[in-house]
Amino acid sequence: MINIGILGYGNLGRGVEKAVLKNPDINLAAIFTRRNPADLKTSSSAKVVSIEQIEDWKDRIDVLILCGGSAVDLPKQTPKYAQIFNVVDSFDTHAKIPEHYCLVDNIAKKNNKTALISAGWDPGLFSLNRLYANAILPDGKDYTFWGKGVSQGHSDAIRRIEGVLDAKQYTIPISSAIEKVRKGKNPELSTREKHERECFVVLKQGADAKKIEQEIKSMPNYFSDYNTTVHFISKEELDKNHSSMPHGGFVIRSGETSSNVHHVIEYSLKLDSNPEFTSSVLAAYARAVFRLNKEGSYGAKTVFDIAPAYLSSKSGEELRAQML
Amino acid sequence: MINIGILGYGNLGRGVEKAVLKNPDINLAAIFTRRNPADLKTSSSAKVVSIEQIEDWKDRIDVLILCGGSAVDLPKQTPKYAQIFNVVDSFDTHAKIPEHYCLVDNIAKKNNKTALISAGWDPGLFSLNRLYANAILPDGKDYTFWGKGVSQGHSDAIRRIEGVLDAKQYTIPISSAIEKVRKGKNPELSTREKHERECFVVLKQGADAKKIEQEIKSMPNYFSDYNTTVHFISKEELDKNHSSMPHGGFVIRSGETSSNVHHVIEYSLKLDSNPEFTSSVLAAYARAVFRLNKEGSYGAKTVFDIAPAYLSSKSGEELRAQML
Repeated sequence: MINIGILGYGNLGRGVEKAVLKNPDINLAAIFTRRNPADLKTSSSAKVVSIEQIEDWKDRIDVLILCGGSAVDLPKQTPKYAQIFNVVDSFDTHAKIPEHYCLVDNIAKKNNKTALISAGWDPGLFSLNRLYANAILPDGKDYTFWGKGVSQGHSDAIRRIEGVLDAKQYTIPISSAIEKVRKGKNPELSTREKHERECFVVLKQGADAKKIEQEIKSMPNYFSDYNTTVHFISKEELDKNHSSMPHGGFVIRSGETSSNVHHVIEYSLKLDSNPEFTSSVLAAYARAVFRLNKEGSYGAKTVFDIAPAYLSSKSGEELRAQML
Repeated sequence: MINIGILGYGNLGRGVEKAVLKNPDINLAAIFTRRNPADLKTSSSAKVVSIEQIEDWKDRIDVLILCGGSAVDLPKQTPKYAQIFNVVDSFDTHAKIPEHYCLVDNIAKKNNKTALISAGWDPGLFSLNRLYANAILPDGKDYTFWGKGVSQGHSDAIRRIEGVLDAKQYTIPISSAIEKVRKGKNPELSTREKHERECFVVLKQGADAKKIEQEIKSMPNYFSDYNTTVHFISKEELDKNHSSMPHGGFVIRSGETSSNVHHVIEYSLKLDSNPEFTSSVLAAYARAVFRLNKEGSYGAKTVFDIAPAYLSSKSGEELRAQML
């Protein structure tokens, strides 16, 4: 039995709590929180513990899953807790991964801990598929499409506009672009040709819809390079129809093995709940981290460094007989 | 530079020869053959060497890629050559993999060699995707669809019928079944609902077409459980339109992370040439085998046991910066 802890009880933490129920070899021992433990309503029988007491658990937790955000929480938490726990995080600020890796690697190695960073689906499963496909088709081209799904960053950008009460933004991959890529002809696609953006916006009373629509559509980086549609709806409608968190996407590599002999490798995800799926990836990798640490493999790891068999609860023999 | 050898110069051997051209860190040092070396017309500058002389090359080859068939060649060749070389094979008789693994594992370990068995795309990349998807969605259902592609076994079965001069059989996945699976509702699908079979048959003079069509369609295991279409064509037409070896398929897992929260993970391949693509997988895994052996990781391996980073020519730092 692998005893895990969760640090942070937001969408991701609640997802890990659910993922544990699907993995009989994993036990959720404790949920650590910065809030008052008495205020947390959880769905499991796991102890709720104040973050102040986390060090008392260092011999009772095999792997701590860090469920905070990449902007503020993880850059501090992962190095800090890799001193006393094996950890898994979902750090997803792509540009800062090398720096985060180095910092965590040093600390984990010094303390004989194993620390998996940047697990999830992108970075994570999508990265794995980019790597495998590139190694197998070195002469080719990569395409990643995201969605249909809610982008938190883009939704936030709309919410910051004056006169906006609330908003949700969907990133939508353009089917005709995906079809072109699937034909294996390595098209050059502009930003506008790959994705479109659809926004559902609730206005504050008296706000100027025309002006806000214009402001959204012309926002640099976020919207100006895309075909963007804006719908104004009521708060009730937003809460009723746009509060789930679906997501997904496509990683496609198309390449040649000799002149005019094309191959297309495609990986795709269609997710009802982005945080629940991400949490399930973290749970499987917690199993891998537990085993690697037992074997004395210390330091920072990414999904690239972990042999697939470590993720499965089955033995090598079972895997060869049933899944190969 | 990794020096590889090829044993067997059929479709797969020729594919590896092409794959090497796409991998600047891999050098094809020698092609070993049971035929008279002088009779082999190869496309590269690699030495062509009689199988009788293979032992002379034991210090000049880092990895030997075994390009023979699973029925007769590999069960003997892989254990034999794992005594003196690191090897990669594409053994694909699923039911006999555990036995093949044990035999090769013992021999490779005794001789400090690393031996990857059953690489390719199924077993191989499809197996990897089954494993990852099962570890992440333990509560779900797997679906594998093959094709559209030529099945050698089914083509051979038709050729054995009296009155048949030549034949090609295509396995075709049924689109409506794939669509059902993609909806995430875990349908139960019969054999007939998943694939259909299309046969292109050349008759010997005087053969009875009606009788042969009936014989094909009623053949147990091979055709009787499928909707099968038979076309009679000329030898010229068969050679002109049916001599390429396209293949591919789909591995889909659909599962729940909590009540009514569904996710679908899909992996698919669309291949112009089955042997060229398989060979490209073998080449990437030859790189991994070379590295594992240098690290002292001996014995038999499958794709499950190899961390993805070993397949890439890029360093860990490059991978984290560019592909994560």
